[in-house]
Amino acid sequence: MSYAPPEEFSGVTVACKANVYFDGKVVSHAVTFSDGSKKTLGLIYPGSFKFNTDAPEKMEIIAGGCRVRIAGKGDWIGFPAGTWFDVPGKSFFEIEVEKGVAEYVCSFC
Amino acid sequence: MSYAPPEEFSGVTVACKANVYFDGKVVSHAVTFSDGSKKTLGLIYPGSFKFNTDAPEKMEIIAGGCRVRIAGKGDWIGFPAGTWFDVPGKSFFEIEVEKGVAEYVCSFC
Repeated sequence: MSYAPPEEFSGVTVACKANVYFDGKVVSHAVTFSDGSKKTLGLIYPGSFKFNTDAPEKMEIIAGGCRVRIAGKGDWIGFPAGTWFDVPGKSFFEIEVEKGVAEYVCSFC
Repeated sequence: MSYAPPEEFSGVTVACKANVYFDGKVVSHAVTFSDGSKKTLGLIYPGSFKFNTDAPEKMEIIAGGCRVRIAGKGDWIGFPAGTWFDVPGKSFFEIEVEKGVAEYVCSFC
């Protein structure tokens, strides 16, 4: 699950305004690709947050680190920078950042 | 100084990782245009921050609001969403957010 995370996306459309969740403790900018696919580039500040999914999501952690539990099942698993996890559609995940800022690229499948 | 702020940028390259300043109280993503020009899309959390400029900058406030003093001169001036200010090169500005999150588009001239 360790790999080279993406560094930049070219030929895309980026929204100027961020999506702001949990009073700004989670923020992201939406990126749309020429094929219509979407990703978000985000930051997560310390705290524990629950997100519901509609489409399946791939979450790549590109800086900092977090702990994650998917669909309320099993153990919390640590994800440092350079790792990723998948979340099924119509489900949810909980994500916790202990300190610093975690950064992610979220892809909607 | 009130106008329609930009909503999105197309045909650009966006950096996945954010620039993180002041322990995450100011964060931005870099956007590069096909002509090589650059902007950053940022968020500012409550606090008072000083930024030095190299090139001249145009700061467009697209959400929230802030108070600004340029080059340490004159009064602090309030800039709500939908306004902008210019900062000379080789200078500095102080920016203060009282509550919530201010969002900006910074253009380097």
